Amino acid sequence: MTVFLKGTEDAPAKIYRLALLDLDGVVYRGADPVEHAAEGIDRAQTLGMRMAYTTNNASRFPHVVADQLRGFGLALDDGQVITSAVVAARMLRRYLQEGARVLVIGSDHLREQIRINGMVPVDKAADQPEAVIQAWYPELSWQDLAQAAFAIENGARYFTTNKDQTLPREGGMAPGNGAMLQPVILATGKQPEDSAGKPESAMYDEARQLLAGDQKKILDIDRCLPVGDRLDTDIEAANRGGYDSMLVLTGVARTPAILTAPAKWRPTYLAEDLRGLAKSQPQPSKEADQIWHCGDQTARVDDDGHITLRALEGGGDPLHDLDAVRACACALWEYQDRGGDMDSLDLPAFVVGA
Amino acid sequence: MTVFLKGTEDAPAKIYRLALLDLDGVVYRGADPVEHAAEGIDRAQTLGMRMAYTTNNASRFPHVVADQLRGFGLALDDGQVITSAVVAARMLRRYLQEGARVLVIGSDHLREQIRINGMVPVDKAADQPEAVIQAWYPELSWQDLAQAAFAIENGARYFTTNKDQTLPREGGMAPGNGAMLQPVILATGKQPEDSAGKPESAMYDEARQLLAGDQKKILDIDRCLPVGDRLDTDIEAANRGGYDSMLVLTGVARTPAILTAPAKWRPTYLAEDLRGLAKSQPQPSKEADQIWHCGDQTARVDDDGHITLRALEGGGDPLHDLDAVRACACALWEYQDRGGDMDSLDLPAFVVGA
Repeated sequence: MTVFLKGTEDAPAKIYRLALLDLDGVVYRGADPVEHAAEGIDRAQTLGMRMAYTTNNASRFPHVVADQLRGFGLALDDGQVITSAVVAARMLRRYLQEGARVLVIGSDHLREQIRINGMVPVDKAADQPEAVIQAWYPELSWQDLAQAAFAIENGARYFTTNKDQTLPREGGMAPGNGAMLQPVILATGKQPEDSAGKPESAMYDEARQLLAGDQKKILDIDRCLPVGDRLDTDIEAANRGGYDSMLVLTGVARTPAILTAPAKWRPTYLAEDLRGLAKSQPQPSKEADQIWHCGDQTARVDDDGHITLRALEGGGDPLHDLDAVRACACALWEYQDRGGDMDSLDLPAFVVGA
Repeated sequence: MTVFLKGTEDAPAKIYRLALLDLDGVVYRGADPVEHAAEGIDRAQTLGMRMAYTTNNASRFPHVVADQLRGFGLALDDGQVITSAVVAARMLRRYLQEGARVLVIGSDHLREQIRINGMVPVDKAADQPEAVIQAWYPELSWQDLAQAAFAIENGARYFTTNKDQTLPREGGMAPGNGAMLQPVILATGKQPEDSAGKPESAMYDEARQLLAGDQKKILDIDRCLPVGDRLDTDIEAANRGGYDSMLVLTGVARTPAILTAPAKWRPTYLAEDLRGLAKSQPQPSKEADQIWHCGDQTARVDDDGHITLRALEGGGDPLHDLDAVRACACALWEYQDRGGDMDSLDLPAFVVGA
């Protein structure tokens, strides 16, 4: 099914009850706040939208993450932070009996979640665990990976919190949990049976349940809006789970990746930052064959993949206008879906987002 | 080129001047000596053969390994132990200038070798190393892998001591150095430029040079005999370097893998253990189409891959006779090389070796 950007006359914060916000690249970058993030969240909350903070990172306790966010001036309860450790422990409990021993390669937070969900965290293959859960944490060592391999070779089932290949750090791109799974996979010949993090949609589904609150009424999928900076995790998870989604331009995904995204990575909305939650979204529309229109901008992609941007009267420089990105994305997605050659495109050098 | 087993009327220890012995699975298994290994080495030395001990393991100082071997009753100098760290440092020095900074992910032994070869070991990407050398050592951590990734992203060249996927340990198969390279490769998109260990033949070539002794006369390749238990490292390295080789049945490789080995993994000689160095090797010979002969045994592989073993007068049970394995290996290698289907073979259940 061909998917294009949608529009809303009301702010998304009025239409969706719950935002499922990714953290790194959306709310913070490492220790620092993302510009306009707190402001955008405040405005959205004023309009009645609730926030859940969802992260593949399984290494920090939710209260530690929440403290960081409160340091940015945000008001939130610890329970609004949903890590892949929270989701993984609930996932494991569906595969295992109460009291099952689980070899935990990961943080104290993950260990605690295993305990909260009625299982027993152990440290060594010699403890004969029924399952291994592998997560990234800063002290991860070869000894951990060896214990995981031995346990799996002895018949333990294999699970993971997430499969992120990379972990952006101050010094550069470090190996993420998905990369750290490889030594165990190569030693044992076994792949993890299931993964809790994005791009699986379980994290969004669990967040809806966990935040249902006292009324125990779970929000419908179409009242929830995943918001992220990565096409291959945040947005893919939304598409897999049947959620609308918003991509913000404050993190990993830049315009070239958006313009050439395959259907599974296409978001519902584009915003420069989280202030987009409180702003109407212009609806791109198809004006004619090959031509898309959004706000004061149009984009045309001809059969050879040649791209033409044009501002209507009153429109500013297309290369600095998010509406031009929206029009161009729709035009290029249509070009892709009709079998256009994506490898020889000469993409516009948009300068939008952080 | 089709390769078959060779024979020798004299003991290999008389024909070859230097044995290039693998360690794990050949001389020891973890902490314990391999049965008959010390006896075989003694006999070979009595016949005039010298020993070099070559290992992909870069984590222990040669004197520590030598002490272990002396504990088995073997007489040797520390310099007869050639680790992949020794070879890797010499390899690096050919790529880098004197004084080059090298980020060492590995043991103190590797660090010392870098120093001995005129380079400067450093610990962090922030030290701006020109190259990264990655090895396995017991304390290997994610922090190490992250530093390697950052340095490579900053332009450092990437090398490794070896690419062994697995590391046999008491608890099972642990991830080996080759598996621990994967997180760095996935984070950086870069493969190591060069690797010192087997199946490259550099270790054998370096051992010949290092053991040339005072006379500085390097032994010819055809006077050296690599001996190992693994087809995909020890034997492949011999074949790549143009060396004859001997496979012993005290370690990883068992008869099914030998019988079905592709040409690059076929050894020159087969022996049950290191006593084979001091024994003549019967020459397998082709008796007729599809039939091979060795000692008192014959093996036939017909066009459908059906295998028939037959003992000549005086021959014992073929399933317990290494000569039958030799005849059968040659017959099956010929079958393979004439395009026979290797997937549907019903292999004889030989019971030979440790």
